[in-house]
Amino acid sequence: MIESIQLDKNSNRHLYIQLYSQLRELIEMGELKEHSKLPSIRKFSKELGVNNVTVVNAYNLLEEEKLVYKKVGSGTFVAPKEIVQDEEEIYLDDDIYIDEDTKFADKKGMLKEDQLINFATAAPTPDLFPIAPFKRLLNKVLDRDGGYAFGYQKSQGYMPLRDSISKYIKSYDIDAKLDEIQIVSGAQQGIDILAKTFLDYGDTVFVERPTYPGAISVFKSRKANIVDITIESDGINVEELETKLKVNKAKFLYLMPNFQNPTGYSYSQEKKNKILELAREHDLLIIEDDCLSDLNYGANKKLSLKSQDTEGRVIYIKSFSKIFMPGLRLAFLIIPQRYFNDILLSKYMSDIFTDGLVQRVLDLYFREEVWEKQISKVEKTYQKRYEVMIKSLKSNLPVEINFNPPLGGLNIWLELPEGISGKKIHDKGLKEGINIAPGQVFYNSQREENKLRLSIAAVTTKEIETGIKILSKIIKEELSNQEYDWDNSIMPLI
Amino acid sequence: MIESIQLDKNSNRHLYIQLYSQLRELIEMGELKEHSKLPSIRKFSKELGVNNVTVVNAYNLLEEEKLVYKKVGSGTFVAPKEIVQDEEEIYLDDDIYIDEDTKFADKKGMLKEDQLINFATAAPTPDLFPIAPFKRLLNKVLDRDGGYAFGYQKSQGYMPLRDSISKYIKSYDIDAKLDEIQIVSGAQQGIDILAKTFLDYGDTVFVERPTYPGAISVFKSRKANIVDITIESDGINVEELETKLKVNKAKFLYLMPNFQNPTGYSYSQEKKNKILELAREHDLLIIEDDCLSDLNYGANKKLSLKSQDTEGRVIYIKSFSKIFMPGLRLAFLIIPQRYFNDILLSKYMSDIFTDGLVQRVLDLYFREEVWEKQISKVEKTYQKRYEVMIKSLKSNLPVEINFNPPLGGLNIWLELPEGISGKKIHDKGLKEGINIAPGQVFYNSQREENKLRLSIAAVTTKEIETGIKILSKIIKEELSNQEYDWDNSIMPLI
Repeated sequence: MIESIQLDKNSNRHLYIQLYSQLRELIEMGELKEHSKLPSIRKFSKELGVNNVTVVNAYNLLEEEKLVYKKVGSGTFVAPKEIVQDEEEIYLDDDIYIDEDTKFADKKGMLKEDQLINFATAAPTPDLFPIAPFKRLLNKVLDRDGGYAFGYQKSQGYMPLRDSISKYIKSYDIDAKLDEIQIVSGAQQGIDILAKTFLDYGDTVFVERPTYPGAISVFKSRKANIVDITIESDGINVEELETKLKVNKAKFLYLMPNFQNPTGYSYSQEKKNKILELAREHDLLIIEDDCLSDLNYGANKKLSLKSQDTEGRVIYIKSFSKIFMPGLRLAFLIIPQRYFNDILLSKYMSDIFTDGLVQRVLDLYFREEVWEKQISKVEKTYQKRYEVMIKSLKSNLPVEINFNPPLGGLNIWLELPEGISGKKIHDKGLKEGINIAPGQVFYNSQREENKLRLSIAAVTTKEIETGIKILSKIIKEELSNQEYDWDNSIMPLI
Repeated sequence: MIESIQLDKNSNRHLYIQLYSQLRELIEMGELKEHSKLPSIRKFSKELGVNNVTVVNAYNLLEEEKLVYKKVGSGTFVAPKEIVQDEEEIYLDDDIYIDEDTKFADKKGMLKEDQLINFATAAPTPDLFPIAPFKRLLNKVLDRDGGYAFGYQKSQGYMPLRDSISKYIKSYDIDAKLDEIQIVSGAQQGIDILAKTFLDYGDTVFVERPTYPGAISVFKSRKANIVDITIESDGINVEELETKLKVNKAKFLYLMPNFQNPTGYSYSQEKKNKILELAREHDLLIIEDDCLSDLNYGANKKLSLKSQDTEGRVIYIKSFSKIFMPGLRLAFLIIPQRYFNDILLSKYMSDIFTDGLVQRVLDLYFREEVWEKQISKVEKTYQKRYEVMIKSLKSNLPVEINFNPPLGGLNIWLELPEGISGKKIHDKGLKEGINIAPGQVFYNSQREENKLRLSIAAVTTKEIETGIKILSKIIKEELSNQEYDWDNSIMPLI
């Protein structure tokens, strides 16, 4: 297997990193067996035509990661799996249910997570991250700021970054002053902070149905009364909202108006207007979670509610996790002035302040205008995946399956015929090499079982083509089973 | 002053690091004046009997930290203080009240924060941070892991770091398995996560009186019933605890048994035993917040409750903010198994996961054994400050003022005579160039006005000497005023 290793001397990646990566892959794929001996440093470097030090460095890296172990006087050996296992998960934690999936996948007969085509997570994979410029800027910040990059920061966030964000967000027609911007450690923390600020025991909160389960968990933890409003392909049902507003005094309405999670639906401008109007009438606060409007594959600009909020009724949340890098743990809120102090206190209680180094680097990233290049690169990649996804779905799925091409974002919502269980299709998928999110996890109440969420965040175009064929096959089987079951279930009637 | 520099060629510290440290100290102590010229490289290396490169490297490090600046063709000069200060706030956010102080300090007649000698914050300043090795390890991680350093991480934390922590914590006699360690984004988040997990509306929680105000805020936000237990110089009053345990069923008891914040008090072993015994009797959960036991200037080892917890009744929180770098936003919990899932869900709700890059760098930091060197350097620096502080207090304070030398940690608690207001002394201090924390902010109820907290985290030994003289003068004035007021107030009785 060692023979398959090829180093590229013209690459700008260090040779030892190349060697290390390829060895790691062989070990992780099981191509190099546990306790098998790696070539000696002298022999290997000769074979590869590289310096001894290259092999030494690569082996050292593998040892640091506990993928190999060394025996003095005898050489370097592949470490047994127990040590490699639980090393690091690569994707996900996208939502609690999907986290659970990893455990399912360990069950007998199911494939391990990294062998699956992963339609379940909406979290992007490392291949899209701008590591080289980010590394350069990290070093620049450390040279410039030294220890201050690791010191205490203001709870509201690093001022120059807030300034950069204020400029960036102008391209989305949002006018936010420095003071109105609050840095938080990711959108999930943003939701948690707002819940801490506004929700007490028994307070009512309105949410879309279905919605992001991480928000539901937080609202439940504050012992709130959660009221669902059905979402349609052009936004929540505004009549339903109006009716429910008459009965309940809600602390706020939590919405994702563009490329909603999980449905991918976007609100029509008409519904956006109506919702702002109702907010005025009922003195209702809106929390707008906008994590994906940057990924727009259609011709129409998707305006946020915040950009049309003339009365300070909207709190806006924007995360850098989906469109940039999830590991940054960085998002921001735009807040009407009257909530500044209360929200600042909630931020303080949550973690005092957000990592200052990352804030400084992201600020430089904006200032050097690397941001726009990166976002357009990401958008292009996703748009291509999106197009392959829609094409594959259209040419493979049976006609009984409905979906709305969202023209943006990362998620597509499939509606199966009544009686077909998304959970069952998910379970079968795991056995056949695909991971999808069953729709039921996105409901707070009245769970609908016949839905699926497919994400394009962590799959290649090739994987999409293969995966959708597998999915379609499973759905077809279920449909024919259903007919069979149906026959059975009406038997007693005869 | 340069003459005082001595390099030890037999030391295992690099010569350039030795040179750099000694120059830094001279600059920071003000022994080398602003804009004064450092010796030329050729001359200096000859005098010291070292290679040119040693001096070049030392000057480069100083330049990176903005302690010196270079002028092409003329040499290297000591940077003016303004450059060392920086745009962002430097200290604080230590607690909400102190954050407020900045606003006070902007008022007319009061000095700006960066002109103040800051005894108010327990947050360390950037001069103690190990920037150079941290930068090296950051780059090492980025070369090794590429995008994975910015990808999703498990909510429980990066496994190799948990492994490193498990080894590190053994030196504190704590035996924690990998599974028992939960990474969190700082101790404040740890407290918030535990409150989310255990506290609902109306639940009772026991705290020390006085205690850390960031904890009080979180417990209040969960609408808990907070019951104070008075702390004495050898730990909380255990009779009071016992009495209150009979009346209240508490969800947990929140304690800082070693070098408590704000008092600096440490629990006697006898009281630790008694508390563990009461926990057993009353099936009480203890949350032990241990942020400072690494800074022990005395002869006795300070055991944690966790190290003596045979029945899984203690949850342990340890932060890297005070002893390492606050900007990392990194702490960990050690959790008995039965709480794993609930706490993991609370972590998930709070921010899904903690920054993976920082976790990876800290892990390498432990593995390369830089940690021990750093912590002993920090401890030495603080011990020196501590000794100067105690000496200054003893020789300057009027005899009416009581305090217990804590022999560790960062805080010293002063007790003023009844009727002297800590807040008033704080306000006067701001006008005269010192910032101190008035004791009242550390109380949940029955605030005691006659207390002060002095911290050594952000002051030099020289500042301590100057600052304590100012403080003593203010206190003496207050004491004589009080006598005067007293005369006045009894006048009508005549």
